[in-house]
Amino acid sequence: MHILVTNDDGVHAPGLLALTQAMRTLGDVTVLAPNRNWSASGHAKTLGRPLRVDETKLADGYPALATDGAPSDCVALALLGLIDPVDLVVTGINPHANIGHDITYSGTVTSAMEAVIGGVPGLAFSLETPLGLAEADYSSAGEIARRVAEKVIADGLPKDILLSTNIPYLPLDEIKGFRITRQGERIYQDELIRREDPFGRPYYWIGGQHPTGAMVSDTDFGAINEGYVSVTPLQLDLTAYHQMKRFEDWF
Amino acid sequence: MHILVTNDDGVHAPGLLALTQAMRTLGDVTVLAPNRNWSASGHAKTLGRPLRVDETKLADGYPALATDGAPSDCVALALLGLIDPVDLVVTGINPHANIGHDITYSGTVTSAMEAVIGGVPGLAFSLETPLGLAEADYSSAGEIARRVAEKVIADGLPKDILLSTNIPYLPLDEIKGFRITRQGERIYQDELIRREDPFGRPYYWIGGQHPTGAMVSDTDFGAINEGYVSVTPLQLDLTAYHQMKRFEDWF
Repeated sequence: MHILVTNDDGVHAPGLLALTQAMRTLGDVTVLAPNRNWSASGHAKTLGRPLRVDETKLADGYPALATDGAPSDCVALALLGLIDPVDLVVTGINPHANIGHDITYSGTVTSAMEAVIGGVPGLAFSLETPLGLAEADYSSAGEIARRVAEKVIADGLPKDILLSTNIPYLPLDEIKGFRITRQGERIYQDELIRREDPFGRPYYWIGGQHPTGAMVSDTDFGAINEGYVSVTPLQLDLTAYHQMKRFEDWF
Repeated sequence: MHILVTNDDGVHAPGLLALTQAMRTLGDVTVLAPNRNWSASGHAKTLGRPLRVDETKLADGYPALATDGAPSDCVALALLGLIDPVDLVVTGINPHANIGHDITYSGTVTSAMEAVIGGVPGLAFSLETPLGLAEADYSSAGEIARRVAEKVIADGLPKDILLSTNIPYLPLDEIKGFRITRQGERIYQDELIRREDPFGRPYYWIGGQHPTGAMVSDTDFGAINEGYVSVTPLQLDLTAYHQMKRFEDWF
């Protein structure tokens, strides 16, 4: 069992260290992650420039590879033969939940998508911590990731399915259990902020409050807010089948 | 009817000019597009730096706004109030089809997703030309985009649905008609190419042949290959509902 670990916060993020340590209990682990933070950068394939791959080490001394590519590029590089063979791709641990519409923005989730496109099971892990990336404790989340990956190694995943796991920020013995959930509704609270530079020219921030979500029990957002680990099976077929009939008489 | 036009190839791409001209027959048009090419860069929300918005003109003299943000940032900026009100977002015309798994990579499609997240109908247009971006003729595709947008303006779109339209590269009178399709299967032919820089250090290209697809009539790929315009309704809920039961006994 050869496991590739990547993330979207960069190779030296503590969530990646926790995830790597958890995966090392299940198989051989190669770490190949971006050399900088790519949060909210989406599903990228870097075709217009070449990519570097450099050797580095995690904080516990474990060897790692760092690229100047996106999270999904790390997976593409690996599956195209840079790291051979890869049996499972795990991504994270992201220090914020990836729920509702976050999915297509998230490097954590889209790098797991890239695994599935490449024919390898992909698992994304996100921890809903109120703390900053460097302050959060990832130990419970690492153990949760280990349990999910262990199940996938034992049972496999259907072709074209990835699992997005969101973990509440609780000590392990206070987590109430696991729920298989559907993608919920994110409520964004973005706000346009206009400022002027020292030369009087305007610039704009996409600012505002942290997003919230609709509190519905069987969703990702509902589960973590009730103290459960949320495991959402996701597919890459976005066709709105239930709406196809509606358009049939248009043309 | 106030229509926002954007794309992922940059504000001066000829496909955006054709789309803008087509939309101007249907309502008031504001163009706000990236100041560079963002192809295959995915669904981004730029939170870590501010965004500039500069005035420019299209090749026919029509005024436009250019940003240093991603395609989806253009839509976010507009819907957060930079351009008010926006009734419809149209994106493209991309000079390559966006089918199968292309969808989450594509700035053309993800900027239409951003519209739907913001509560406004989103329409993505892509032309499967064998020519380069600057050589292709977008006149048929512009007329097709006009017909699709006209239908959406008349009938509306269900909440949470966007339309991704792929257009075969044919003169208008050789296009056989429209098909409402499902997302097909892309077959990527990516290849890892290793080179050495002048200092003997390796670098890597994600190279290989242009992707192809599975030839199935009721899919996006099948339709355009049989000479039809493909209109695929897409949703942002990626939950694999048919697989949820399978995981219920895992934990």
